[in-house]
Amino acid sequence: MLPGPPRELRPMFDDTVVPLLKREFPLEAEFVCRTLKTTGVGESIAQQKIEPPLRKLVAEGLEIGYCARIGAVDVRLVAHGPKATTLVSDAERIVRQELSAAVYGEDEDTLESVIVRLLMEKRQALAVAESCTGGGIGNRITNVPGSSAVFLGGFVTYSNAMKEKFLGVRTETLAALGAVSEQVAREMAEGAKRQTGADFAIAVTGIAGPGGGTVEKPAGTVFIALASAQGTEVLKMFNPWDRETFKEVTAQQALNQLRLKLLK
Amino acid sequence: MLPGPPRELRPMFDDTVVPLLKREFPLEAEFVCRTLKTTGVGESIAQQKIEPPLRKLVAEGLEIGYCARIGAVDVRLVAHGPKATTLVSDAERIVRQELSAAVYGEDEDTLESVIVRLLMEKRQALAVAESCTGGGIGNRITNVPGSSAVFLGGFVTYSNAMKEKFLGVRTETLAALGAVSEQVAREMAEGAKRQTGADFAIAVTGIAGPGGGTVEKPAGTVFIALASAQGTEVLKMFNPWDRETFKEVTAQQALNQLRLKLLK
Repeated sequence: MLPGPPRELRPMFDDTVVPLLKREFPLEAEFVCRTLKTTGVGESIAQQKIEPPLRKLVAEGLEIGYCARIGAVDVRLVAHGPKATTLVSDAERIVRQELSAAVYGEDEDTLESVIVRLLMEKRQALAVAESCTGGGIGNRITNVPGSSAVFLGGFVTYSNAMKEKFLGVRTETLAALGAVSEQVAREMAEGAKRQTGADFAIAVTGIAGPGGGTVEKPAGTVFIALASAQGTEVLKMFNPWDRETFKEVTAQQALNQLRLKLLK
Repeated sequence: MLPGPPRELRPMFDDTVVPLLKREFPLEAEFVCRTLKTTGVGESIAQQKIEPPLRKLVAEGLEIGYCARIGAVDVRLVAHGPKATTLVSDAERIVRQELSAAVYGEDEDTLESVIVRLLMEKRQALAVAESCTGGGIGNRITNVPGSSAVFLGGFVTYSNAMKEKFLGVRTETLAALGAVSEQVAREMAEGAKRQTGADFAIAVTGIAGPGGGTVEKPAGTVFIALASAQGTEVLKMFNPWDRETFKEVTAQQALNQLRLKLLK
């Protein structure tokens, strides 16, 4: 019998249950487990890419598991016995080769922890300008301990007036193209970079739904801009999911766009 | 056997499993379940307050359940049989009386959906200025469909420079009292209200940890300010939890401070 609240459960589990399990059920000497975390490829695509080249290792005892999350797929490589370490490290090399930059990290990494680490290494600073994600990108970045060293902050410009006043988005752009447009995303990112002095600025503007869509721009439409010293790149994405999933997927895509830029 | 991904599971469950269960296990004619959602009181305090006056109803068949979440406790009232409706509505009246404003809603309500509803009724607008929560308050508000009608947006002012430039926090205040202080929280909220023209502005500044604490201001210290036409009120809270729990509890306290103000 264990208590429900995580703050009570965890120390009790670590201090009492784990030693008991270790005593009663001694671990095999050789058990290796490695999780590779990916984003930007679906589970079935990942599977199609990695399973043929892994077939030989599977015959030798490698086990492959998948966990599909919102905007991410974890690939778990497991092996037992004397060859476990070799099997898993051979498999890891193959998966990294097949999925290349879709692999953003391993085990406990998160997309935001990887980004904070890359920014720290480069001593560069980030700002964000969020419309439809409402603060969700900043929220994820600031979940990483020490992120204050590289994250200056951001703007949640939900209204057009805030986009104009704080990011310098032009009234004419908003009038001609609407708030959800490639050009507004671009001006938001460039405004956030200019106003804060950051090296990189992410901006998102889209229609989270369920309301607010049109035939030309249905709910789920979103523009994601990344401004840097090399200019501004804008992605157009279509995430026609429920409101909260839309926000999470969009934040994930925006963070991944920044990660791919930081890797270049 | 059901699939794992929620988007596949839910329609299958609704369309196939629920009709099957209803056919195989017909519901009692009289079963009533009501969840009252509370914040600001711990589970044991809630229990001590409501169980003595509910004792008579429990003897007649009322069941009480609790679910403790981060910064919230759900109280579930259940009854079966011909007296179910009366038992649960009598119990609800007693719980609302004993816990008064700690009850923020029922069943599917969230703190943020209640706030958006109250702001819509009053036709008033909200802005936020977030330091340690990093965008988490804006993220929750914008999870509510239609929130764009009352949420103008916000500032994630993680750096001192951003607090000065966009919210007008005074350099002298930051130098004399530090970013985590009652006065900085006050100036952040007032700055956000002034800059956006909102009727209400919430501001938070604190030490999420694990680093950054001092003897005088240990990690977990946070100031939450609410600026409105009636002036600015600042709460000092101490939330010495892990970083993500700190952020969630702080966002919850800030939203609740606004809710209590909107009820006045």
